[in-house]
This record gives sequence, C-alpha cells and structure tokens, in this order.
Amino acid sequence: MEHTPSTHLEEKCSLEHIREIYNLAIRLFPICRSITGDGVRQTLHILQEIVPQMTIHEVPSGTQVFDWIVPPEWNIRDAYIEDLEGNRVISFTDSNLHVLGYSAPVDKLVTREELLSMTYSLPEQPDVIPYVTSYYKERSGFCMAEKQKLSLDKDRYHIYIDSDLKEGSLTYGEILIPGQAREDRNEIFLSTYICHPSMANNELSGPCLTIYLAKWLLEQPRRFSYRIIFIPETIGSLAYLSRNIDDMKPHTIAGFNVTCVGDNRTYSYLASRCGNTLADRTAKNILRFYAPDYISYSFLKRGSDERQYCAPGIDLPVCSICRSKYGEYPEYHTSADNLDFISPQGLGGSFDLYRKCLEALEGNHIYKIKCLGEPQLGKRGLYPTISQKGQYDDITSMMNFIAYADGTNDLIAISDIIGTPVEQLIDIAEKLIAAGLIVKC
Amino acid sequence: MEHTPSTHLEEKCSLEHIREIYNLAIRLFPICRSITGDGVRQTLHILQEIVPQMTIHEVPSGTQVFDWIVPPEWNIRDAYIEDLEGNRVISFTDSNLHVLGYSAPVDKLVTREELLSMTYSLPEQPDVIPYVTSYYKERSGFCMAEKQKLSLDKDRYHIYIDSDLKEGSLTYGEILIPGQAREDRNEIFLSTYICHPSMANNELSGPCLTIYLAKWLLEQPRRFSYRIIFIPETIGSLAYLSRNIDDMKPHTIAGFNVTCVGDNRTYSYLASRCGNTLADRTAKNILRFYAPDYISYSFLKRGSDERQYCAPGIDLPVCSICRSKYGEYPEYHTSADNLDFISPQGLGGSFDLYRKCLEALEGNHIYKIKCLGEPQLGKRGLYPTISQKGQYDDITSMMNFIAYADGTNDLIAISDIIGTPVEQLIDIAEKLIAAGLIVKC
Amino acid sequence: MEHTPSTHLEEKCSLEHIREIYNLAIRLFPICRSITGDGVRQTLHILQEIVPQMTIHEVPSGTQVFDWIVPPEWNIRDAYIEDLEGNRVISFTDSNLHVLGYSAPVDKLVTREELLSMTYSLPEQPDVIPYVTSYYKERSGFCMAEKQKLSLDKDRYHIYIDSDLKEGSLTYGEILIPGQAREDRNEIFLSTYICHPSMANNELSGPCLTIYLAKWLLEQPRRFSYRIIFIPETIGSLAYLSRNIDDMKPHTIAGFNVTCVGDNRTYSYLASRCGNTLADRTAKNILRFYAPDYISYSFLKRGSDERQYCAPGIDLPVCSICRSKYGEYPEYHTSADNLDFISPQGLGGSFDLYRKCLEALEGNHIYKIKCLGEPQLGKRGLYPTISQKGQYDDITSMMNFIAYADGTNDLIAISDIIGTPVEQLIDIAEKLIAAGLIVKC
Repeated sequence: MEHTPSTHLEEKCSLEHIREIYNLAIRLFPICRSITGDGVRQTLHILQEIVPQMTIHEVPSGTQVFDWIVPPEWNIRDAYIEDLEGNRVISFTDSNLHVLGYSAPVDKLVTREELLSMTYSLPEQPDVIPYVTSYYKERSGFCMAEKQKLSLDKDRYHIYIDSDLKEGSLTYGEILIPGQAREDRNEIFLSTYICHPSMANNELSGPCLTIYLAKWLLEQPRRFSYRIIFIPETIGSLAYLSRNIDDMKPHTIAGFNVTCVGDNRTYSYLASRCGNTLADRTAKNILRFYAPDYISYSFLKRGSDERQYCAPGIDLPVCSICRSKYGEYPEYHTSADNLDFISPQGLGGSFDLYRKCLEALEGNHIYKIKCLGEPQLGKRGLYPTISQKGQYDDITSMMNFIAYADGTNDLIAISDIIGTPVEQLIDIAEKLIAAGLIVKC
Repeated sequence: MEHTPSTHLEEKCSLEHIREIYNLAIRLFPICRSITGDGVRQTLHILQEIVPQMTIHEVPSGTQVFDWIVPPEWNIRDAYIEDLEGNRVISFTDSNLHVLGYSAPVDKLVTREELLSMTYSLPEQPDVIPYVTSYYKERSGFCMAEKQKLSLDKDRYHIYIDSDLKEGSLTYGEILIPGQAREDRNEIFLSTYICHPSMANNELSGPCLTIYLAKWLLEQPRRFSYRIIFIPETIGSLAYLSRNIDDMKPHTIAGFNVTCVGDNRTYSYLASRCGNTLADRTAKNILRFYAPDYISYSFLKRGSDERQYCAPGIDLPVCSICRSKYGEYPEYHTSADNLDFISPQGLGGSFDLYRKCLEALEGNHIYKIKCLGEPQLGKRGLYPTISQKGQYDDITSMMNFIAYADGTNDLIAISDIIGTPVEQLIDIAEKLIAAGLIVKC
Repeated sequence: MEHTPSTHLEEKCSLEHIREIYNLAIRLFPICRSITGDGVRQTLHILQEIVPQMTIHEVPSGTQVFDWIVPPEWNIRDAYIEDLEGNRVISFTDSNLHVLGYSAPVDKLVTREELLSMTYSLPEQPDVIPYVTSYYKERSGFCMAEKQKLSLDKDRYHIYIDSDLKEGSLTYGEILIPGQAREDRNEIFLSTYICHPSMANNELSGPCLTIYLAKWLLEQPRRFSYRIIFIPETIGSLAYLSRNIDDMKPHTIAGFNVTCVGDNRTYSYLASRCGNTLADRTAKNILRFYAPDYISYSFLKRGSDERQYCAPGIDLPVCSICRSKYGEYPEYHTSADNLDFISPQGLGGSFDLYRKCLEALEGNHIYKIKCLGEPQLGKRGLYPTISQKGQYDDITSMMNFIAYADGTNDLIAISDIIGTPVEQLIDIAEKLIAAGLIVKC
C-alpha cells in the first residue's frame, strides 16, 4: 500500500474521547441484557445520556414482524445452583452468562443427571462459560465451564432461577440526524445491537462505538441524513425493518452493521449480499489505505443483522467493518470475551475507520474537469515551474485526479483507480474548485 | 472442495447396471463400424434392443447436408496382405483397424515399395496399429504397427480388400423422449457417435453409456423433452442438423456430446464455444463437487461434433464431460484403445456424472423467498431452538439458499455461489416449499 | 507464446532502411530544439526532406490553446560559464543540455553562491548533465554534472547566455495521408514530439521512426486515412487539439504516441486512459506475439502527450509502444541518453512492431462464415484427405478462425482468442474468401 495509516483517532478524536468509549463499555458490561427486558432499557438510557437525541421505542410482545412474532419480555433477578449444604456451585451474580438466556423460572431439587441435561458447556474450551440462549422455546438452563461441570459430584442440587417471561415489549433506540442537503434526503444507516449480556467485543463494542459516532456526527457539517439504531439482534432488526423499510429503501445510500469493533487484532470486512454496494466500495477503499492487512469475508460468513438488511426484497446496502469478527475468534460467545479482550486502542482504531468511511461518503462527489486537455497548473502555483526528472511526486495525485475527473467516476472510484486516499482527494478537489478548474456534477 | 464425491453409480444405478454397460461394449466391440455401412446398422439394432423407442433413419448417399455431401456407403467383408507363399502378414479378421477406413477394393500383387506407400503406422508408437481413414478421397490402404512395417522384407506381396463403395445411405438412430411440462417444450440434447471400428474409449464408451442414460431417463419423471442421437461423427451431425436445426434451436436448453467416457483416469470438461451456456454451467457445477480434480479444456481443444453444434449460426449449448479426452491420451486412435482400457468403474463414474447433470437440469428452478427478512425456521422445526456457537453447520446450506433465493438466481447459480451441491438444494427447496416459504418463479 | 518473433524489419524493411532511420537521428542530434524556436523549424525541414507531403504550421505566441497560452519563442545562439581567467567551465557548444531550457539572456559576473543557486545537477547521478527546463517562468540557469558542480572553487564566475524570448510562434509538422475507403473516413493518428535538445531515445527516436513510418505508409495500399503530427510535447498537442479536435474525434479509430522507441532493451506498452480502445487491443495483440516479454504500464505511468489525447472530453484512443519508457531508465533526461544508447536494431524492432500494428488495423475486418456447420475444406484442398492423429496442426488456425468468424469478432479479437497472429489470419481470410466460404461484414 502506498500510504501508511494516519495516526488514527488521535487526529480528530482525542485520546480522552477513546477512553470515554472504553469507560462506557466498563459501565455497561455488568448489565444483563437480552433481546427484551429491563437490561436493554437500562443500557439505552445510559446511551441516551451521551446522545440525548436518542428516542426509545417499545414493540409489544406478540407483534407480528414479517415472519416472526415478538416474544414475551424476559427479566431475571437472580439465579444459582447450590448443593444440599447450601454451597453455591454457580451464581448469577458472579456472571450472568451462567443462566441460559430466556430461562423460565425454576426452584427445585434435581438429580445430578437432571442438572447435567440442562447445563451447557464447551468441552473443547473447558475453562470458559459459554453464552447460550433459547429465545423461542421455553426452557430453563445453566451454562458453566466444562471443568466445573465435570466436577459436579453430588447426587442432588437445588436449582433456582428468579425470572419471568410475560407480556411486555421489545425495546430499541433510534437517533435520526437530519442532513443539510436540501435537494434530496439521502441517508446513511448505522445499526448495532444491545442484546448481549456481559460480553465485551461481541457485543458491547458496537453500541459503545456507535453512540460516540453519533455524537461526533452531530458536531459535523453533514450532507446526508443519518439513521442510527440500537436494537436487539435479529428480532430487533426485523421489527425495525417491518416498521421502517418503506421509508428507508428509497433513501439509504450506504449502511454499516457495527459489531465486534473492540479488540486489538486484525481488521476484517464482511461483504453485503451483492458485495459491491456503495457501502462495500467505501469500506474496502478505507481498509485498503488504513488497514491493508484486513481479512475479507464473503456474505457466506454473515451472522448478524445483515442477514435481514440484505435479505431478498429488503436489499439495503449494508456491510461491516469488524476487528475479530463474531464466530472467528476463540473467545467469541464465552466469558473470555470480557473487558480485557477489548481495549481503548482497539475501539479507537475502529472508530477512526468508521469515521473515515463516513467522511469519504460525505465527500464522495462526482467531479468534472472544466477545460479540455490538462489545465496549466503551473500558472496557478499548483505545479513546479522547473521541469526536472523526479520532481513531480507531490503533484502526481492531483494530476491523476484531474485525469479521472470525467464526470462519471465518483471520488471513491477515483481513489480506487489512482491509489490516493479519498481524504487527500477531498483536499485536492477543494483546491481545484478554488482554482475554478473542476465542477461538481 | 467442500463435499466428498458420492459413491457414484451405486446410489441409484446398481452395480449390475454398470456391468451391463460394459458388457454392451464387449458385444459391440468386434463390429466394423464406419461413417456408413452395415456395421452402423448392426450397432444401432443392438442398441435398439435396450431402448426399443429408438428409430433408425437413412440419409441417401449424395444428399447435400450444408456444405457437405453424404458419401457413398462403404461395406467391407475381408482384407489381408500375404506374401507369395501365402503367409498372411495382416488380416482384417485379426483387427478391423488393419484396413484404412473407406478403402476401395483391391486384389493384386504389389512391390514392397508400393505396399509401404499405402501402409500407415506410427513411428513414435511402434507397437500399435493406428486408426486411419480416407472418407472423401478414394484410396486403398492398410494400417499396421511400425515394428511390423519395418519387418516387411519380401519383394512382392499380394494385397486384398473385399469392400465396396456404392450408392447407399448414412444411418443414424434417434430417441425422442417427451417431457411432462405442458407450458413449453424445452429440450435437452444428447449426441454420441457410432462410426468408429474396434476401439473402446473412443468410441464405444459414448454410445454404450448414452443408451443406458436413455433407458434411465425413460424410467424417470421428466420436466424436459430429450433428443438423443447416435450418429456417425461430423457427416452425421451435419446431416442431422440439416434436417432438424430449425426444430432444435428454439427449444434446446442444454446439450452434451457424450464421448470418451469409459476409462478410469481423471475426468475432463470440454467447453462449448461460448463457454458459459447452461450446459457448461451444469457440467462445471457437477464436476466441481464430484470430480474436483477434473481437467478443463477450452473450445480450442474441440475435435468432435461440438464443432458442428457450436458452429456460428448453429450455436447450440453443447459441451462434454469426458474421462481421457480424444487426442489427449496415448492410446487414442490406436489398437491400444481396447476393452482393457475401459472398465465398468470408468463407465459407471461417467454415467453417474451425466445422470447428476440431467438431474440438476431437471431441478434447476428459480425460487423466490416469500417473506421479507429471514423466515423463522425454528418454529417450523428447521432450525435449532438452542442458540449456541458451532451448532449451525447442518442448516447453513438452507440459510444460504434462502439468502440467494431472490427470484433471479437459478439453483445451479446458487450452488455455484454457496458451495452446496444442487441435489442437496433440491431437497432443501422441497422442504421450503412444503413449509410455504418459497415459490417457484 | 506460440510464435517466435519474425525477423523484424528485414522482412519488409531493408537493413538499409533501418540504417537510414539511425542516420537521421545522427543528423538531427546536434540541433538545439525546444518547444519553440528555430531548432524545431530546422528539424521539421529535415523531416520534410524525407516526406515532402509534410506541411509546417505556426501558432503565434500568445495564442490561447484551451487552458494554456503559447509562450514567447525562444532562440539561443551561445552560452558559457568562465572563471575570471577566461577558462570555460561549461560551454553550450559542448552540449546544449548545459543551458536551462528557455533561459533568458544573461551576461554578468556572479559569485560562486549565485552560480550554484542557478545550476542544476543530479546528486544521485554525478557524472551526467541533467535536462531541465523552465518554459513558463522566466529564469536563467545552467545544468552540469554533479561532479563538475562540486569542483567549482572560484569565488566569482562570468556567466553568459545569448538567447532571446520574444513574440514568435510554436511550430509543428503535419502529414495527412488520405485513405482509399470511400464509404467512411476512418483515421489513424500518430503523434511524436520534436521539442527535446540533444537526447536520443527521448527524444529523437520518435520523430525519426515516425517519419519513416509515414514514408512506408505512403507506399502501401491504405484503407484508412492517417494523421501524423510532429509537435512540441504538451503545449504542441494542446495547440494541435485546440485546432483539430472537432475534426479528429468522429473519425479517429486508433492512435499511437510514438516515443522512446530507439534503445535495445525490453519493449513496453503504456495503456490509454480507458485501457481497452482499439489502439490498446492492437498494441497488446502485436506485443503478445512478437515481444511477449514486454512490460505493461497503466495510464497512471503516463507522462507524454497521451495526457492530452486521453484527457476527459478529448478521449482519443491513443496508447504507446515503447522500448525503455521515459522516466523508467537511468539515462532518461540526461546527457547519457545519447546516440550510443539507441541503435539501428533498437529502432528497427520498434519500426517493425508499429508497422505490424498498422497492418493489423488495416486488415482488421469482421468476417462471417457463409455456411452452417463447418465447411468441407478437404474438397477445396484446404484440409488433409487422410484422417490420422497428429496431422492437423497446420490447419488448426484455419479451423479456429472459421469457428470464431461469427460476424461479431473482429480479426484482432479472434487472434486474441485463438492465439494466431493477425498477419496469419489475414492470409487465412484471403484463402477463405477465395474459396467463397466467408464474407466481410
């Protein structure tokens, strides 16, 4: 790659800002979130402290959303397993992962065999608690480390889950930021999910980063409108789409599903279904220049809300930039995906890439050179007046930009062709507009 | 490749069936076939025993077929070379390859030099008799192993060919199998050739396999019509096309020239002229999953009746799946291409691939998912109700199918994209239709 | 590659002819050319001796050409640097590269520091004089080897440049060769530049080769018209286009900017902006067969008049075949790019490739086979009447040509597909036309 990464977040986003993102993750981590319930509401209210423009919406249990029905609301207060001497084997207060997500209440004595049949573990990762759910079939269950499961040697245990599953609602947050363009209402869409209990990369990193992206966007001049949502995964995106797809479809020019953006490993890209939407082109362009070693995943490796956003008939232009993508790192969906796995640096790098994507989209105009043949840049102070070999490197990007500013290529396409980052092309375009040499199409 | 080959023929085609194909080759092997004559008729009558629906057609000598004229009919009864003591050097009864194909009758004494000038051999393969013909220029000639040719040490020889070249006809067989689709008359075309004397891979393997494909097709439910022809190569395909092209062109959706399908070496694929017809897409898809090491030949390596089927203005969608392709194995067009070179296993593997191609074509519908967003498969028993990492592999194909069932991709295209064999997708489509989730377009 | 290079120029262009090209370079080498002035006129008059059809045109200083203005005319008679004892440090008569191009007159004593500040050298190539110009900002300056610059040890020097910059004109030569096709006026465009002082590959090789291409073209039957221009680089192409673009645009089917064609190193290709014009397709086809090791440069490596010819809105189909391309060899724009760097062999090889490109364009028809199916070539003496394996290599090209002569592919496209050089296909097409088998579309 021709360009070394910028110093990322430091440029426009202070170190203090990065630290704030991480601190938010620390604050939200202990809350027991699920696809419904008070954990989601508590999380959204904390996010609302950062961006008060967020509105919070409730979709009643039983609502049909396309092929699905919003399930009963789940809330949990406590849970444990004890032996008959009252020694706690596991406790909800130690880790909310110990309870199978959406567990129905239970309070009874069970045999060891009964307990084992309702206890989930990962034999191949014997030290960690797995994250397991049963949203749409009523069960009660526990999760624990395989090692702990193997050490259960009593004949009987007391199991206790103080939860309830009843009519209520699914809760989501929405931030609508109007753009300043009069002529149209083109919109950029950001989605992230707030349905995972105490795990850090997947998934507190997404909502923590996204709320600060929203805050940053509110401070910027904006050509486009932004639709930013904080939803429970799958059922939440379906619920949101069922209410909003008619409004979104004609206006959404690019979207990103923000997930798994917190750790410090390599960057990755998950393509949209079509693979070449404006969102894909933008993500690949930014990654090429600032994280050239990124891993590229096809849509066959999808697993989050792009499953809904890119479904046939929905077809929104949505892709993802991740660090370690869900399903592709050992800590995924276990207690090892904790606050040590993510870092301010990891979150900050992702923030910077998403910011660059949004800036590239905002600046992604189509330009056309006004004169025939190359303009004489020298008389405008834009080109050396001495012609000597090896002296042009600094103006090569401007010359290349002019060569491809033909009224058909947008800035991202030109960047792809000539190998100059979009942010440099935006600066060049400004100089050329000031010199009266190009026009926006 | 993601999938190991199925156990081929064993699945749907019994071992006995495979053995029948090979036994047919044994039975047909001794007959002296050429582009016309009683050897062709005898061969077609034996094939007709297996599929009585075959009709046999005669095209008179002298008939204009496009740029060509059907030549006189050739028949041969005996031939030999003797020295003056009556010792036979070669005899037609030992191998019909010893006579230059279409040789005019001769019975005379010749000098060694005269004999050598009319005797064909392969210096680079000194042990085998080559297969040589002179259909369109009247000659008499012999073929023998280079070693034998070098051992000819007498001054004079008696040469004898009891053949005739006279008005008659070109003979071909045709099986038309109607399809069950009412709304259209889409047709699949199979062609093979019955003009080679005693050689096994090229070419008894093609007609032997094709007649059993026809028999199998007659036992299947069929969406499409099938046109299956057994012709002499080149002049036969030209004659057939000159009579039938107007009828074939609007209806033929895919076709295969079945040749060189009997040996046990690697599989190969010969592209059509355009290279991406439905026939090509089907063949490449099936080979990818069941014979991933296959060799791919471009149309520049053509050499059989695709020369006519893909000619400009004809433009039928015809390609080939072969084992060792004509021209690409040392035994080709020699006495070494004998019954030991082919095998039941070789024929059976090819039969299975062609059968899979035809099944893929029959099942190659375009589907469209009926709901927006992903359907909830869990409530239909098609998806686990427990969500735990690493538990989805068995339903990934169904999810991928749904993601691409957008009303534009056919099943073969989806298989290419998602890496699941068409036969699995057909099963999945049936489940989804039963669940009311997809419709055929 | 399938074909070894032909013996190049020897075939159609005698060795004497090659020698003439090189001798012309020897004759033109000493002249001090620039973008304007008598050096250009003197050069054009010598070229006119070879092709008297050349017309010479003057564009007055001050003329607006698109975004540029034709600068004052520059002429120089003498220049030197002396120490105060009258010892010459450098002299214009030794090398015209010693003077900064377009230097204003000067005659004064300067300190060593003053002299150094107006003296250009190449620290990384300390033995050679660099070629430096200042066309559009008035300066006076000198160029010398870094070694010589470092040896300047006197306190004061006498610097002298006897030049003038005044109203005059820019001079260019133009050869218009009418084609013989009545129905249209398709035109091929050749451009080369005559603005460099004493350097050989870049650039005397271009005009020397191009004038002999023009001479050769005048002796050939021609389907197309030819527009061949000898201009100063950049300002000359802009001036020419500003006068002629409306006339050129509808008729120009292919063009080449002929530059850096004299040395004996590897061949190279510089793409047009779009990269796939008829000119590009022709150049790549010819290079594939006759110089398969050529280096391919994208339009991002441009640097000559294709900058104007391919500019948005101009969009002429212009690419280049070079030997060592400008900017890509160490001798570039220095005194080391001298007559020893180029050779008759180097020029002759380039001449041959350009000639082959023009012949390929002239012969680049679209053909269509007249019969359905393959024609019977045997009855026309175009195919062996004996069919024996391994005997067809010599007619494979004809069979392949026929297979792709479908009324859509032009000859260059067929050559690309089947791997047979266009010149062989032209011969084949003639035979097939004579046989009544194909028609021109």
